[in-house]
Amino acid sequence: MNESALLTDLYQLTMLQGYWHEGMAETAVFELFVRRFPPQRNFLVAAGLAQALDYLENLRFHEAEIAYLAETGLFQDEFLETLRDFRFHGDVDAMPEGTVFFPDEPILRVTAPLPEAQLVETRLINLLQFQTLIASKAVRCVLAAPGKRQVDFGLRRAHGAEAGLLAARAAYLAGFAGTSNVLAGQRFGIPVFGTMAHSYVMAHDDELAAFRGFARSQPHNVVLLIDTYDTLAAVDKVVALAGELEKENIRIKAVRIDSGDLRELARAVRQRLDRAGRTDIGIFASGDLDEYKLQALRDAPIDGFGVGTKLTTSSDVPYLNCAYKLEAYAGIPRRKVSAGKQTWPGAKQVYRYYAEDGTLAYDSLTTAEDRQNGEALLQPVMRRGKRLHPPEPLSVLRERVAAQLERLPVPLRSIDQQAGYRVEISPALQRLTETTDQRLGLH
Amino acid sequence: MNESALLTDLYQLTMLQGYWHEGMAETAVFELFVRRFPPQRNFLVAAGLAQALDYLENLRFHEAEIAYLAETGLFQDEFLETLRDFRFHGDVDAMPEGTVFFPDEPILRVTAPLPEAQLVETRLINLLQFQTLIASKAVRCVLAAPGKRQVDFGLRRAHGAEAGLLAARAAYLAGFAGTSNVLAGQRFGIPVFGTMAHSYVMAHDDELAAFRGFARSQPHNVVLLIDTYDTLAAVDKVVALAGELEKENIRIKAVRIDSGDLRELARAVRQRLDRAGRTDIGIFASGDLDEYKLQALRDAPIDGFGVGTKLTTSSDVPYLNCAYKLEAYAGIPRRKVSAGKQTWPGAKQVYRYYAEDGTLAYDSLTTAEDRQNGEALLQPVMRRGKRLHPPEPLSVLRERVAAQLERLPVPLRSIDQQAGYRVEISPALQRLTETTDQRLGLH
Repeated sequence: MNESALLTDLYQLTMLQGYWHEGMAETAVFELFVRRFPPQRNFLVAAGLAQALDYLENLRFHEAEIAYLAETGLFQDEFLETLRDFRFHGDVDAMPEGTVFFPDEPILRVTAPLPEAQLVETRLINLLQFQTLIASKAVRCVLAAPGKRQVDFGLRRAHGAEAGLLAARAAYLAGFAGTSNVLAGQRFGIPVFGTMAHSYVMAHDDELAAFRGFARSQPHNVVLLIDTYDTLAAVDKVVALAGELEKENIRIKAVRIDSGDLRELARAVRQRLDRAGRTDIGIFASGDLDEYKLQALRDAPIDGFGVGTKLTTSSDVPYLNCAYKLEAYAGIPRRKVSAGKQTWPGAKQVYRYYAEDGTLAYDSLTTAEDRQNGEALLQPVMRRGKRLHPPEPLSVLRERVAAQLERLPVPLRSIDQQAGYRVEISPALQRLTETTDQRLGLH
Repeated sequence: MNESALLTDLYQLTMLQGYWHEGMAETAVFELFVRRFPPQRNFLVAAGLAQALDYLENLRFHEAEIAYLAETGLFQDEFLETLRDFRFHGDVDAMPEGTVFFPDEPILRVTAPLPEAQLVETRLINLLQFQTLIASKAVRCVLAAPGKRQVDFGLRRAHGAEAGLLAARAAYLAGFAGTSNVLAGQRFGIPVFGTMAHSYVMAHDDELAAFRGFARSQPHNVVLLIDTYDTLAAVDKVVALAGELEKENIRIKAVRIDSGDLRELARAVRQRLDRAGRTDIGIFASGDLDEYKLQALRDAPIDGFGVGTKLTTSSDVPYLNCAYKLEAYAGIPRRKVSAGKQTWPGAKQVYRYYAEDGTLAYDSLTTAEDRQNGEALLQPVMRRGKRLHPPEPLSVLRERVAAQLERLPVPLRSIDQQAGYRVEISPALQRLTETTDQRLGLH
C-alpha cells in the first residue's frame, strides 16, 4: 500500500494550519457513514477496516513530503515543523468487517485530537468506501447464483493497481472462491485461479495443438478455453483429447466459454460432453457478467463463473454517498444543516434487534451513551493509536458475511426488489438533535 | 506505483509455462484498442503511456514473488527458474498521450517475444484503460464549461490510492487547472488547490470566528466555505470580514458553495457581494458535478468548479471495452472470431486526415506496412525494452489535448449529441483479413 501522508486533500492540511494557528486541538468525534443508498442496493457490507487501521497506525510525514509542502508556499515553517511529530493517537470504534449495514449508520467512529481526526478523512473514505462498494456488489453476485463457484477476474479494468488488489480482497470476504489477481493471492492469501486466454489458442496454428500443449505443460490445472473459433467444434477436440490424455494421467477439469449466449452454449456444450461420456468435464463461463446475468444463468449447466469488470468497478453503482462528518468537538455535539446534507449530531452507536427466527428485525441509531439491549454494532478496535486486536483473518470475515446473509430477511436478499429496513432514530438521539439545533439557533 | 510482477492475472503465468513447455518464444504482435465506444462518448483521449512504459522498463520477478508462485503448486521449478531473468525486451509503438482516438484504433502496439508480450497484458490494460477513461471524462467537463477553472476533488471516492493519483494526472492533462490531491502534486508537479471543509466551520462555535481564524492562518489562500448553515447570512459575514481583514492586508479571494441549487445560490451570492462592493470576491462551486451539470451552470456567475466523484469514477461510464489482442505470431497474422469479439488481424497503423480548415476529416485503419499520406498516429516509443525518449512533460500533453480539441469537428465536441466519425478500413487491411480468414478456414 502506498501510505504517503500526502495522500490526502490539500484542504485537510490548510485546515490543520488553521487549527494550529487557533490552538484548536481538543477532542473531536468524526463518523463515517453512507447517507442515502442507491436504489440498486438493499443493504451494504462494511469492508476495508484492516487497511484503514494500517493507515492510521503508520501515518507519518517524511522529510521529502514536508519539503514539498514548504515549496507550495501555502504553509508557515512553524506549522510544518509540527508535522514532523504528527502521529495518530486517537480511538477508533467500528463495525467489524463483513457487517451488514443501512443508511445513516456509522460504520466507523474516530475520537481524536481535532487535527488528527481531520487529516485522516480523505484516505479513510478512500479505503472504506471502495471495499464496502465491492463487497456489497460481490455479495449480490453470491446471492444471485448460490452454490456456484465465482472468481474475481476484474484486475485489468479495475481503476489502477490498488483497486484491483482491494477488490479481490473485498470479493473474497463476500464469498467469492478466489481471484485471478496473483498479487492479491500473495498479499492476502486468497486462492488464485486461471488457465488460458484466446491468445494462447491464436498463437498456435491449430486449436487442438494449443489444447494439447497447454494440458501437458500443467497437468493439474487443465481448463481449456473453447470459444476462440467454433465453440462446438472445439468441444469435439476436447473430447478426443481427453481420451488421449488419460493415457498420460492428465485430466481435463473443465472448459471455459467467454462469449456468445452463455446459456445456450453451455447447454449445447454440456449435451455434447455428456453424450461423449464426459460428465467429468465441468463448464466455466465468463464475459461481461454481473448479478443480473448470473441470476439469469443460475439454472444453466455452468459450474463456475469468472466475474470481472462489472464487479471490480461496481459498474451500476460506481460510488457510494459516503461521508465522514464532525459529530462533536470539545464535548459539544455538532451538526451540519446544508441543504440535503443534514447529519445527526454527537457520537453514536447502532443497536441491532433480531426477530424470533433469528433474522434481522430493525436497528436503532442512538447516542453513544445510550444503553440498549440490542447488539451493539460499533466495537472498540483502536485506542490511543494502537490496534486492540490483530487483523481478523479473511476466513473469519467470510464466515461473518455468510452468517449475516443467512439472517437477512428474504426481501432484502433480492437483487431486483427494493426492500426497506427499519432504522429507528432513538428518543435519546432525537432529544440531542433538538438541543443541538436550539444551540445553533435553528429553532 | 506498486509494480510487482505479480500484478497480473494468473493465466498469464500459466500460459507462460505453456509457451515455455512448447518452446514458443517467437515474435508476437499485440495491440491495445477500445472495441465499441459507449453512446456517451464521441471520442476518447489516450492517456497513461508514461506509466505503461515505466512498468515495462522495470518489470522483473523478485525472490519472494517466485517463492510464492512455487507455493501455489501450479508451476514447475525449471519454469520458475526462467522468471529470474525475465525482462521486457520488446518494441512499443503508441499514440502520444493526449491523442484523440476512435473505435478499433490501436493506441499501443507491443512487438516482443511471445511470453513477454503476453505477461504484460493485464497491467497495460489496467494502466491505459483507466487514465484514458478519466482523461476522456475530464475533456468532456472542459468542453462543457469552457474558460472556467476546474479542479479535481475526487480522491476520497476514487477506487483506491492509485486511482486517485492517476485520475488527478489524467484530469490535468485533459485541461483541468489542478487537483486537491497533495500526493499528485508532489509526484507529478500538478498545481494543488484546497482551503476548508464544513468540519472547520462546525468545530467553531461561531461561523464568523471560523472564517476569521482561517483567513489569518493562511492570508494568501483565503476561500471561505459558506453553506454550512445559512448561505446568504454567511455572505454578510464574509462582507463584514473582508473590510476588517483589509486593514491586515488579507484578501478574501473567493467563497465556495457545496450544496443546494448552485445556479440560484450563486446568483444570489453574487448579487449580495456586488451590492456590498465586493466584486473582487469570486465564487467557487462544488458538489456532485459532472459535464452535464457544468454545462447547465456555464452561464451562472461561478468562476471555478471542484469536480469530484463523478470525474474520478467516470460514473456514467466506469469502464471502457478495452482489449489487448494477439494480432500476429511468428510472422503470421492472427484473428479472433468469437461472437461479438472479432478483431482485425496483423500489426496495424492509423492514418489521420484533416479537412482544409484543419479539422479532423477521417482516419484510415490499415496494416503497419501500408504507407499513406495521412498523419501516422502510432509512433515508436520503445525499442528493445528501452524508452526512445524521456517522458513528455504534462505541459506538453496539455497543449496537445487543447490543440486536438480545437481541431475536433463541432458535432464531436458536443457532450449530448451522438456524433460518428469515419474510420475507414483500408483496402490493404481488408485483403489481409480475407487471407487470414481463408487460412483459418472461415471462407
